[in-house]
Amino acid sequence: MPPQGLEELARRATAASRRLAVASGAERDEALSLAAALLEEEAGTLVGANRGDLARAEAAGTPAGALDRLRLDERRVRQMAAGLRAVAALPDPVGEVVSGGLRPNGLVVERVRVPLGVVGVIYENRPNVTSDVAGLCVKAGNVAFLRGSAAALESNRAVVSLLRRALSKAGLPEDGVVLVEDTSHDTARRFVQLKGVIDCLVPRGGRDLVAMVEQHATVPYVIDGDGNCHVYVDRAADLEMARAILLNAKCSRPSVCNAAESLVVHREVAEAFLALAGPDLVEAGVELVGDERARAAFAGMEPATEEDFATEFLSLKLSVAVVDDLEGAISHVRRFSSGHSEAIVTSDLGAARRFVREVDAAAVLVNASTRFVDGGELGLGAEVGISTQKLHARGPMGLQALTSVKYVVYGEGQIRT
Amino acid sequence: MPPQGLEELARRATAASRRLAVASGAERDEALSLAAALLEEEAGTLVGANRGDLARAEAAGTPAGALDRLRLDERRVRQMAAGLRAVAALPDPVGEVVSGGLRPNGLVVERVRVPLGVVGVIYENRPNVTSDVAGLCVKAGNVAFLRGSAAALESNRAVVSLLRRALSKAGLPEDGVVLVEDTSHDTARRFVQLKGVIDCLVPRGGRDLVAMVEQHATVPYVIDGDGNCHVYVDRAADLEMARAILLNAKCSRPSVCNAAESLVVHREVAEAFLALAGPDLVEAGVELVGDERARAAFAGMEPATEEDFATEFLSLKLSVAVVDDLEGAISHVRRFSSGHSEAIVTSDLGAARRFVREVDAAAVLVNASTRFVDGGELGLGAEVGISTQKLHARGPMGLQALTSVKYVVYGEGQIRT
Repeated sequence: MPPQGLEELARRATAASRRLAVASGAERDEALSLAAALLEEEAGTLVGANRGDLARAEAAGTPAGALDRLRLDERRVRQMAAGLRAVAALPDPVGEVVSGGLRPNGLVVERVRVPLGVVGVIYENRPNVTSDVAGLCVKAGNVAFLRGSAAALESNRAVVSLLRRALSKAGLPEDGVVLVEDTSHDTARRFVQLKGVIDCLVPRGGRDLVAMVEQHATVPYVIDGDGNCHVYVDRAADLEMARAILLNAKCSRPSVCNAAESLVVHREVAEAFLALAGPDLVEAGVELVGDERARAAFAGMEPATEEDFATEFLSLKLSVAVVDDLEGAISHVRRFSSGHSEAIVTSDLGAARRFVREVDAAAVLVNASTRFVDGGELGLGAEVGISTQKLHARGPMGLQALTSVKYVVYGEGQIRT
Repeated sequence: MPPQGLEELARRATAASRRLAVASGAERDEALSLAAALLEEEAGTLVGANRGDLARAEAAGTPAGALDRLRLDERRVRQMAAGLRAVAALPDPVGEVVSGGLRPNGLVVERVRVPLGVVGVIYENRPNVTSDVAGLCVKAGNVAFLRGSAAALESNRAVVSLLRRALSKAGLPEDGVVLVEDTSHDTARRFVQLKGVIDCLVPRGGRDLVAMVEQHATVPYVIDGDGNCHVYVDRAADLEMARAILLNAKCSRPSVCNAAESLVVHREVAEAFLALAGPDLVEAGVELVGDERARAAFAGMEPATEEDFATEFLSLKLSVAVVDDLEGAISHVRRFSSGHSEAIVTSDLGAARRFVREVDAAAVLVNASTRFVDGGELGLGAEVGISTQKLHARGPMGLQALTSVKYVVYGEGQIRT
């Protein structure tokens, strides 16, 4: 694909979306299977293209973590292919009749699931995101209009080139996947203002990207935001269960959004629970910061600031607050929650019910680790991201989040009186 | 309610939303019934307050149509009360388990319908909108955070005062309905940027308001946009049925968004259909503008410009295009549609199916008038508006559009491996 202006790319995406929207599920799945095979066949080409990106990033002094996210090796390419095959195997969301019925005047009213059209994705370094999100978009009958980062440009070009070949081989327009190769900030801003072209924008990246979208986007979007997730250990908690859940939520993968960042514990069990769980946390390398009562209950904790309680650390750091009661726990969580995932550990049914009702988050868990809040774990198959907003999609976003619903009305000449 | 700064009102709305979200359906319905009774009892007060608004508007030279929209009389107040009672009688959307199941690891996963929180509504003159939207918001467990127009300020104050009394009598916080009395443009702009306060914004008004929201809003919103609706009369149409549908769609209430603005007709039946329907349209006072072939088929039609085909007239004006075939009809509709409601009249099943699939609109109708695209007519009970966007809600928005869905996960100590 030769470099082209954003308007020309937008025109191509729009044109292709009409064909994609009426492609059969078999055609879309075939495109994904062909893409998986091409990724495997051309793994060497992809790794080679990626090597160029890596070299430039290294020369620019990119830190090790970012370099790792940028890296494509044979194993990651195989994972990308497996991801495409897994998405192809999911049930087709398009055409589902969501609800329907017969009106008294004989009109048949159906709500039918349809593709959104053009899904814009603006994302950061990881080139595997390119095939992951393009696969989900195409599966749901959408055009994937992608704007990746400058650092991953060679890799993204190579991946997109294969995806387009696969679409073409499946008899679908290659513009079903379109990559914006101009990675300037100005173009990113124009991208999120392509009103009438992009039906839904999904920004995948850090806080700066989300802020840019919130400030400048004129197209509809779904935000995959922070996860400042809490585990509340209630007075009536099984403390051993609470220990296992907290360790899992905090330590199994601290860099992800569904990891716990804060422990809230009822004052009546604070000392006993911290005596049980504290040493394990410390041994796992967790840095603990706490309020006054937490520090009184467990030695070796630095003071937690307001800022600490509001922060998604994404690292082995945990803030600890002691509360007087369930009401205090709910207030604390409501104050600092980013609306992602919040857990309570309790054997008190009333406390569980109240926590579930009053905590306002995409997911509320009772006696389970926050780490389960993930499309795969909750049964969605694959996920586009985890929405922390309340409109359209909330929590793990599966294929449904990439669709809309259309009213279809069948009559026999009815007119409105 | 004394005049207060926007930030203070926002704080009150947020605080009240916590209580509203856990109010029982019985409490919310009671508040609506009490509000209906108060509106009826205090109809005289409302009409009096409205008289002040009307006098100011008249003095300012407001046109008759706008004055009529602003007017509250005893009949309209009774309609407002009846509307509140009808909403109270609808099924409670809150708490519905939308989907759910058991995961292999024993986790129970449910998706539960919950209130959005604070619903912001920014709207124009009609004071009956105040009770209509507040009723829907409260029914769905939300705070109604209202910003009406300067012209209707006295009326809105009076209506909101009664709604707040009703909430209080029902044991709910009176801040379940909050009115922004500062009607400056600057405040409107700050209102649509109350991120973290307004969970969903519903602008109800004309193009300028929608444009302001699209340009300045940082809060999530749902757009109730234009309806440039088409009726396509296919080669295989029952022409008598098509005539009745077109007349109904165009003439039964030309000022509303689901009225037809454009006729598209297959060239093989253009002459016969226009000979049949044209005189009725002319007799009903419809001004016809058409393309070259339409003008050749029916005398007395002015030429239609591109602009005409793109315009939602909202009056007794109809653009007419003759097309070669179904493909041409779909292309024409796709080009000029505002994504609201599009109808085909045909007895050809294949044509109907193709039109339904390929036309991208909130509602597609086969052999029925576009005027049916309305929450009441399609079985939603009441409607907040008609969304022309694809995210969150599309087409007539009932109570569901004022809710979100929360994942609730129940475990017995599960951790993620």
